Amino acid sequence: MKKKVKRIAVLGSTGSIGRQTLDIVRALPGCFSVAALATGGNLDLLTAQVAEFQPDYISYAAEVGNDRRAGFKKSGCDFLTLEEMASHPDVDIVVIAVSGNAGLGATMAAVKASKNVALANKESLVAAGAIIMEAARKNRATILPVDSEHSAIWQCLAGERQPTRRIILTASGGPFRGFSRAQMKDITPEQALAHPSWKMGRKVTVDSATLMNKGLEVIEARWLFNVPVEDVIVIVHPQSIIHSMVEFRDGSVKAQLGVPDMHLPIQYALTYPDRVENTALPHFNWTEFPNLLFEQPDLDKFPNLRLAIEAGKKGGTYPAVLCAADEAVVDLFLKRQIGFLDISNLVEKALNKHVNNKHPALEDILEADRWAREMVLEMAGRKL
Amino acid sequence: MKKKVKRIAVLGSTGSIGRQTLDIVRALPGCFSVAALATGGNLDLLTAQVAEFQPDYISYAAEVGNDRRAGFKKSGCDFLTLEEMASHPDVDIVVIAVSGNAGLGATMAAVKASKNVALANKESLVAAGAIIMEAARKNRATILPVDSEHSAIWQCLAGERQPTRRIILTASGGPFRGFSRAQMKDITPEQALAHPSWKMGRKVTVDSATLMNKGLEVIEARWLFNVPVEDVIVIVHPQSIIHSMVEFRDGSVKAQLGVPDMHLPIQYALTYPDRVENTALPHFNWTEFPNLLFEQPDLDKFPNLRLAIEAGKKGGTYPAVLCAADEAVVDLFLKRQIGFLDISNLVEKALNKHVNNKHPALEDILEADRWAREMVLEMAGRKL
Repeated sequence: MKKKVKRIAVLGSTGSIGRQTLDIVRALPGCFSVAALATGGNLDLLTAQVAEFQPDYISYAAEVGNDRRAGFKKSGCDFLTLEEMASHPDVDIVVIAVSGNAGLGATMAAVKASKNVALANKESLVAAGAIIMEAARKNRATILPVDSEHSAIWQCLAGERQPTRRIILTASGGPFRGFSRAQMKDITPEQALAHPSWKMGRKVTVDSATLMNKGLEVIEARWLFNVPVEDVIVIVHPQSIIHSMVEFRDGSVKAQLGVPDMHLPIQYALTYPDRVENTALPHFNWTEFPNLLFEQPDLDKFPNLRLAIEAGKKGGTYPAVLCAADEAVVDLFLKRQIGFLDISNLVEKALNKHVNNKHPALEDILEADRWAREMVLEMAGRKL
Repeated sequence: MKKKVKRIAVLGSTGSIGRQTLDIVRALPGCFSVAALATGGNLDLLTAQVAEFQPDYISYAAEVGNDRRAGFKKSGCDFLTLEEMASHPDVDIVVIAVSGNAGLGATMAAVKASKNVALANKESLVAAGAIIMEAARKNRATILPVDSEHSAIWQCLAGERQPTRRIILTASGGPFRGFSRAQMKDITPEQALAHPSWKMGRKVTVDSATLMNKGLEVIEARWLFNVPVEDVIVIVHPQSIIHSMVEFRDGSVKAQLGVPDMHLPIQYALTYPDRVENTALPHFNWTEFPNLLFEQPDLDKFPNLRLAIEAGKKGGTYPAVLCAADEAVVDLFLKRQIGFLDISNLVEKALNKHVNNKHPALEDILEADRWAREMVLEMAGRKL
């Protein structure tokens, strides 16, 4: 039987996950064809990607590059919106690697069109997990986790028939593990962007430094694997070798591990349920990691993790507020308009002011998102 | 649907694995009934087990306890041979927890009768892996690994469809990790029987101290999981938390972990493919194991591991000679008739003298076994 070529759409093709997705396509000739590429505004890289992968469809923000549209048309590309791309009949797998809110609409469109959705966008599941998972169930869409932690959990769950007892998410602890609160006061964007083990985009790198990233992953895991937030525990593991673990009802624990590199979880999502030999992937060698450390996270020093767990437990529109407030404050921090400790202070204040909607529709979630961003900017403005 | 009670036969019920098997039966009421119990000679414990579990069939060595046969008959027990027990129609799962050669005949009988065989006896697979696995395939018998390492590998393989790239067996390193050869010279049986992380029978505890146990497990893994010996690697992990790992063709590694305790792998073999809640099983807590270490085994200081890997690669009757010679020399060591370093010296000499039979029948394997034991005793006698 001839192997079916999977047609993929990469939404966010010029970002970190998007580029690594195309590395996998390049490394496994004959496995994939690139049907569609979408970027925010990096048109130079998009041009190169179009030349190499020859997609039929592209997308980029309406406000940029109008002068280059004719050129892309000439290369044989039609323009689609993200939602059209995510639900297009020529697409088998939709890789959602756009950041922030843009991901939510595309994810919903892909799910409603019963696609295989390789989901690297955390915000959509955190803010609207209940709605997305219900739509996926109804439309028989499959969510393929791309985060290394969730990919690890997913791999550990393969072949297991009973519900899990606990999920154990590992966290590197970020660059400020062991810092005192006093030391944290003066952390600069440059320091926050220097992650000890993972190379990632700017926003997620700062989120890793505050442990907000792990908090968002707790909520994601809750939806992806249908477990209560109480049963997702976080453990700090600075070497980032064990990517996460699952504890089963008989007490047995399975872990997935490897070099900290996003190519493998991306490839697994794309080749699932198969595993494919790829010599370009890094090879894990135990002798290079003779010592693996584990410790409890410090929720007093990293309040963002506590805030995320609390928001996840409360549910409703709280996680959307958490997500949006965090995105806004991280942006302010990177622009040097607020300090490192303000990140969690402002998120906490926004959460405290929020009036929860326990069973929100998608519009309510988007409204909570807008409200949280405005609230953060207002509070930061008053502070400045 | 009413859950089917699994009827089990425990061969070796008074040994370490046998007693822990009955702990699981006791802890999961309604899951199992004990159809048959067999022991070597511990009739007091067998009497207590018969009173508690009321098996229909028992077995013990012909040369002991003739005066107690009538009593057992009175309790409603019929006497069977190990082979009859292992192939009896009233038995669903046969737990092979007898040590040494006695296990081989019972394993073959169970496999030929298409049973589920929970195999804790290493020797049978090491000496006759090709024959047992072929018979299991033909008769659709299922071998359920009971060793913690092989249970770990088996659990990691659940749901995986492609062949593995490598199996990574973890070894505690035993009590003499870091010893010099000079220090090893004077090791006493008492020292060799004090294992740092596992509580096991005497022979396997000494084998753990010499790393022979790990070598036998390499050969076992080769047969259980159908991988060349070259693709089974050993790594020393003194905390014995990660019980073993599997590396897949995409480079992803999965590990199974938990407290070093045999109850879990025994239970998994008995409840497979389900996992069952059992509050009596130890709960794994990361905070108690903040630091996991890994290092290469030292094949010069622990030649038994090297000898086993070489015998495994050569195949034929070499593994049977390895096994039998080791059993004989460990017995001599425990009787203080030879020193610790003589263990591997005598095994190596026996292997060097052996003329391999590349494709042995079961009789050839039993003959090689006999030859090796005699050879060891003869060489030891000359030495004494």
